[in-house]
Amino acid sequence: MWSYVPPLRDMRFVIDEVIGASAAWERMPAFDGLDSETAAQVLEEAGKFAAEVLAPLNGPGDLAGCTWADGTVTTPPGYPAAYRAFVDGGWPALACDPACGGQGLPQLLNAALYEMLAAANHGWTMYPGLLHGAYECLHAHASGELRERYLPKVTSGEWLSTMCLTEAHAGSDLGLLRTKAEPRADGSYAVSGNKIFISGGEQDLTDNIVHLVLARLAGAPAGTKGLSLLLVPKFLPDGSRNTVFCDSVEKKMGLKGSATCAMRFDSATGWLLGEPNRGLAAMFLMMNAARLHVGLQGLGHLEVATQNALRQAQERAQSRAPRRPEGQPAAAADPIVLHPAMRRTLWTLQARTEGCRVLAYWAAQALDDAASHPDDAVRSAADARACLLTPVIKSLLTELGHLGADTALGVWGGHGYIHEMGIEQIVRDSRVAMIYEGTNEIQAIDLLLRKVLPDGAAKLGDLLDWAATQVEGSTQARVALENLQALRAIASRLCTDAATDGEWPYRAADDFLRALGEALLACAWARSEVAACRALEGGQGDRAFYDAKLQRARFQADYLGGEVARHLACAERARAELPFLPVP
Amino acid sequence: MWSYVPPLRDMRFVIDEVIGASAAWERMPAFDGLDSETAAQVLEEAGKFAAEVLAPLNGPGDLAGCTWADGTVTTPPGYPAAYRAFVDGGWPALACDPACGGQGLPQLLNAALYEMLAAANHGWTMYPGLLHGAYECLHAHASGELRERYLPKVTSGEWLSTMCLTEAHAGSDLGLLRTKAEPRADGSYAVSGNKIFISGGEQDLTDNIVHLVLARLAGAPAGTKGLSLLLVPKFLPDGSRNTVFCDSVEKKMGLKGSATCAMRFDSATGWLLGEPNRGLAAMFLMMNAARLHVGLQGLGHLEVATQNALRQAQERAQSRAPRRPEGQPAAAADPIVLHPAMRRTLWTLQARTEGCRVLAYWAAQALDDAASHPDDAVRSAADARACLLTPVIKSLLTELGHLGADTALGVWGGHGYIHEMGIEQIVRDSRVAMIYEGTNEIQAIDLLLRKVLPDGAAKLGDLLDWAATQVEGSTQARVALENLQALRAIASRLCTDAATDGEWPYRAADDFLRALGEALLACAWARSEVAACRALEGGQGDRAFYDAKLQRARFQADYLGGEVARHLACAERARAELPFLPVP
Repeated sequence: MWSYVPPLRDMRFVIDEVIGASAAWERMPAFDGLDSETAAQVLEEAGKFAAEVLAPLNGPGDLAGCTWADGTVTTPPGYPAAYRAFVDGGWPALACDPACGGQGLPQLLNAALYEMLAAANHGWTMYPGLLHGAYECLHAHASGELRERYLPKVTSGEWLSTMCLTEAHAGSDLGLLRTKAEPRADGSYAVSGNKIFISGGEQDLTDNIVHLVLARLAGAPAGTKGLSLLLVPKFLPDGSRNTVFCDSVEKKMGLKGSATCAMRFDSATGWLLGEPNRGLAAMFLMMNAARLHVGLQGLGHLEVATQNALRQAQERAQSRAPRRPEGQPAAAADPIVLHPAMRRTLWTLQARTEGCRVLAYWAAQALDDAASHPDDAVRSAADARACLLTPVIKSLLTELGHLGADTALGVWGGHGYIHEMGIEQIVRDSRVAMIYEGTNEIQAIDLLLRKVLPDGAAKLGDLLDWAATQVEGSTQARVALENLQALRAIASRLCTDAATDGEWPYRAADDFLRALGEALLACAWARSEVAACRALEGGQGDRAFYDAKLQRARFQADYLGGEVARHLACAERARAELPFLPVP
Repeated sequence: MWSYVPPLRDMRFVIDEVIGASAAWERMPAFDGLDSETAAQVLEEAGKFAAEVLAPLNGPGDLAGCTWADGTVTTPPGYPAAYRAFVDGGWPALACDPACGGQGLPQLLNAALYEMLAAANHGWTMYPGLLHGAYECLHAHASGELRERYLPKVTSGEWLSTMCLTEAHAGSDLGLLRTKAEPRADGSYAVSGNKIFISGGEQDLTDNIVHLVLARLAGAPAGTKGLSLLLVPKFLPDGSRNTVFCDSVEKKMGLKGSATCAMRFDSATGWLLGEPNRGLAAMFLMMNAARLHVGLQGLGHLEVATQNALRQAQERAQSRAPRRPEGQPAAAADPIVLHPAMRRTLWTLQARTEGCRVLAYWAAQALDDAASHPDDAVRSAADARACLLTPVIKSLLTELGHLGADTALGVWGGHGYIHEMGIEQIVRDSRVAMIYEGTNEIQAIDLLLRKVLPDGAAKLGDLLDWAATQVEGSTQARVALENLQALRAIASRLCTDAATDGEWPYRAADDFLRALGEALLACAWARSEVAACRALEGGQGDRAFYDAKLQRARFQADYLGGEVARHLACAERARAELPFLPVP
């Protein structure tokens, strides 16, 4: 049956051997004393929590869902207790500033933690999912009394936070927001408006909820330049109930354990966070971390779908395979893992999962370098890299996560369609990750239109140069470098030709992002191949692990190596006219 | 909000102008008196039933689901009444033999009927979904008293049927079935065993249920050659309850209005249908019609997802588009249908939907020609064509239907994840169509290993020759013919090289099927282009319809034209070694 086994071995391989993070920590004073062994212990404990506490609540939580009555929300059985265990374990503060009560560990380890949480129970993970972003937002913008009152409890996870952006008429386009904030004499604001799709807007996990709300001050300009960020707690400092109410929870395709709330702010008391009219910038501080975390959800879905599909394929026998491993005795029916179509599916899922893990951890390490590396130049290069990698990872990993789970479902045949097998829930839960925190189409526009074209692809060039250094010594280096070169070439054509057909970049954006993502995946595999070869040559134990890694690197090259060219060709084809649709 | 508008205009275009079916009927005595206008009236009435009776039950039926208590099943509110209206309207007997109480209309019209039923309410349509297959099975194999007792009521739909194949350990591999049938002195059999995933195994729509059961007679050979088909009614001719019981209904990802039953046959009384040990052949008579109908479900999902996505995109405004139609006034936010990523999604969905309709109707017409054409040679060629088209349509249309609905969901953004919008249900309902009636992987093996390779691709060659005749006069003819040539070439290489690497065809099967499907879609669009040009040149009215058709033909060529080459390249890449997965 369904289970989740934390992929600790592969995580260690990626962290230590592929991206060399533990060696890097030694050169970073912020991570003084942190070594590979300590990191491995942290992840082992995190894995235990995910597998033993969260995973058993995943299927039942989907069936129970959240219930709403008179403005209060009851989460599925076991959710509040699991959250208390999470807080007691100190997990919320893992990557927070020790000066604020945090443990000061790298984002990379926090990323691995959240990969495991999402894989084990995405619905539950929605509650603490915004916790770190809220911490960063308060850490950067809250001052004085506000900081003292809220930052420690947000850091520790004692109080959970929400991100109140969306309104019914304003999702991707935040410039249309109507929620208002009016100043009061005491320095607070009266916040009024309706928000939808607020994850954890109401819940029974924490005593208080800290809403971070985008609203418009009186007289503020229209559009996104007139938005301010306000902190609106469920309970006011004097203990009285603030006038913020949950009017309903949504009936969703998945993530049924997560309360998605319609919230009403009725002259609710709030305080400004950061500068007036600079709310979007403050919120984006949350958003960039949030987008990497959404990508990690996709990775978690891929991992848990893959490992369960593999076990199912080994256990279920149907029909004879056209070929059997040597020495395997003939039987009336072979395990379906021997059938070519299933082998191809499973190798694909594994190659995708492990390649995506390298990509996501590269980005997390870039965030750590950007925040904590002693060398200015390294910090600024890492920041630029993280900035470009974020939309790629958010979009690519959520798509591969959802479509990967959808493909994996087929391994169960008709049984995959049944709830108790577990996989259909992953398909449903994973779909929304392609939408929230900026749809994948918006990620593509963010990448190409806002981050690649404006500087003539200069920063993209730096990223591709960096990627090229990763493939040195690999048997796949030549192909990987050709990919990078082809990306450079199309980026240059896009920069030039946008002058005559300004819409081409928009039409090409999705395929451009995907081509870049696939090219980076190829680099990730080339790098993994080098690391595995090095380990084998070094005579390290665990040969089976490294041999399998090399087989997957080979599969990636043979079977998935055409994806970059395919998406580049699609981006080129998108030069063709794309008329407006006829009005019916 | 969600709705279903029967695509009657496009159906007429395909039936009359693209495949010229109404002209063909004139040459077929079986369809004496049937003309384009009569057919259009039949479809208009069918469309009314689908849109007005079934569509409103779709969302509520998903929420209500089926309930099981003490062996009885209650279907969602409104389902039984809708079924009575379906029977009263004479819809079950549409394409049945007039000698048996049928209306004798073409399979093509029955196909259009079922496309609409599935689009409006796939869950409900599961109940009558096997009706026509059961009719064919009884029509071919039931004799004497059995025929008299059951055929008329199955034809009229007064009693519904089930297809009892799957057992818990035997899904794709029916050779593993264990259900037994023991002869009794009176010529009946005692049937014992457990079946799962039986759609409509128990329901409250009809007074009796006619189970068609695959079982093994005592002493029968192992494997599929020892299977017999038995008719086991819920109520025996004397009115007593037969010992066949529904022990539970499954909790599924979708199709929640359809009761998927675990059935227990406890020395239940049944009668042999056809010859002993020839049960699979008798069942396959049901299966081929059933597979085309599953393809039609995919088409229905595509259609309903596409038309609702288009309306949503026209109604919702978010952000400014980089380009606007001339004369459209500037606004704070444009309808998202103007945004390039959405335009591309919608053109793709429309091109897929309408191309798939041509493909499915081509196959239905081939079934009609095979059954009713006066010319022997035409009948036999049509039969061979239907035989090859069936797995392609089952597999391609269900995949495009599910992935198309999944893509369409994105048009709603976060709202698409909410049940009341309707689209997330289509994503869930459509997934199983890729699995049941033979998984899509099995369709691919059926096509390449059982239908293409054994005769050295001779019949495939005939299909490709036929396809070539369809594209004459199109601006896309050159590319379409190149596709067909490339398919011939790879089929020839597969025939030859299978001798040295017998597993390559298995590794290549999915991409081979998909390449053939995409090549046929390109032909369908080339043919549609010719038909639209002819109508415009002929000065027919409705220019807007034909102009839009030409735009979609252009989009297909520009944006989707690379799909054949892509899948052929993947089939070639599948020459690479595909190792067994390491045992962990």
